[in-house]
Amino acid sequence: MWPADRHNGPRAAVVRVIHRQTVFPQPTERSCENDRMTALDPASAPAARRGRPGYDQQSLLTVAVGAFNRYGYEATSMGMLADELGISKSAIYHHVPSKGDLLRLALDHALGGLEAVLLQPEATAGAADARLEFVLRGTLAVLTERLPFVTLLLRLRGNTGIERQALERRRAFDREVAALVDAARHEGSIRRDIDPRTTTRLIFGTINSIVEWYKPGGPLTADKLADDVILMVFDGLHRR
Amino acid sequence: MWPADRHNGPRAAVVRVIHRQTVFPQPTERSCENDRMTALDPASAPAARRGRPGYDQQSLLTVAVGAFNRYGYEATSMGMLADELGISKSAIYHHVPSKGDLLRLALDHALGGLEAVLLQPEATAGAADARLEFVLRGTLAVLTERLPFVTLLLRLRGNTGIERQALERRRAFDREVAALVDAARHEGSIRRDIDPRTTTRLIFGTINSIVEWYKPGGPLTADKLADDVILMVFDGLHRR
Repeated sequence: MWPADRHNGPRAAVVRVIHRQTVFPQPTERSCENDRMTALDPASAPAARRGRPGYDQQSLLTVAVGAFNRYGYEATSMGMLADELGISKSAIYHHVPSKGDLLRLALDHALGGLEAVLLQPEATAGAADARLEFVLRGTLAVLTERLPFVTLLLRLRGNTGIERQALERRRAFDREVAALVDAARHEGSIRRDIDPRTTTRLIFGTINSIVEWYKPGGPLTADKLADDVILMVFDGLHRR
Repeated sequence: MWPADRHNGPRAAVVRVIHRQTVFPQPTERSCENDRMTALDPASAPAARRGRPGYDQQSLLTVAVGAFNRYGYEATSMGMLADELGISKSAIYHHVPSKGDLLRLALDHALGGLEAVLLQPEATAGAADARLEFVLRGTLAVLTERLPFVTLLLRLRGNTGIERQALERRRAFDREVAALVDAARHEGSIRRDIDPRTTTRLIFGTINSIVEWYKPGGPLTADKLADDVILMVFDGLHRR
């Protein structure tokens, strides 16, 4: 079904992206995303080791994102987070100055992952349809690897400045993918009888809806899901 | 691209479905959906003609659905609806006993449209892949024709009994489509290397996401959009 180089090439590269960017950057990593995270509270990791072995900034962020997705960002108070974590509000403020910072860090984790895909060599050089496939596989990998974070990003309504900034970054990412769709269309590798804007929206619709039902750790692996999506979108469901 | 009978056959039939079920059933129609709507307030249409020419139950419902989608069902009060309509709350209660009834009628309008597609002869007889395509085209037609109503349905969280009943009807509809996917797979017309549950979820993900961006009356007609979706899902984006 797939020529070996197309199947193994881009996917192996995407796996490299994901491994390079661990879910939560370690203090020794020098990524831009990590800088933003540690700049907020450079002492958070040592502090966690000193007095609160259960929670550092990263695990606190995971709990916060879970609550934001469950109750909505507006409806989640720092008191509710403290209750969920079984710690005091002041213990949370030890890690982050405000609820808005938790939101900003969480959205940055989703967006940083997506933006990193676009910077890979496989996304910037070569045939447009191979670049498009690489970027979609990368998007799927970030989505399944950072599922609650991407879920939060996709449910944003833009009520606060932090949300609007994140939406602007998301739109910039979408524009890059739209440009790849356009390039693949001009190159002649994808069909021209569908408007490229419609194509891009249908692709994102298909991919983004996965946050509503995908269960990591279940029988459907992230790699198989990515293969399935790429197969349906590019080759269709009909047997030939 | 399409054999004439497959392209014109199911689509023409879907157009018939939509025309038979007008967006708001007329009092003379004898559909089950209409019975439910008029049973609530059989005098609503004459009353509207007598004293409130601007609003009958149907136009009131359209405004209510717009508000539910904008502010959320819970956050929308009857007072807010009265303000949007420029009438008193008691004028609203003249048409419907409660906010819950507005929600129930609105969800019934979306679900009734979808369920009617499954009852058409083209959905119940013939090759499974043609039936599947007919049902997907019908789903797309209901979605674009009753866009705010389907949007409301897709955003339900199941907080009330009315919502849970609607979600159960939606799940029953989804199960029928899943059964068609399964049948098309067994028949050998759609690919077997994707799990049928994944296939169904990706199809619904693609179709349902349309509520997030489609603008009726814009340059992309509902028919062209349906063609585009069917083409991508069944034949894929790659040029051959």
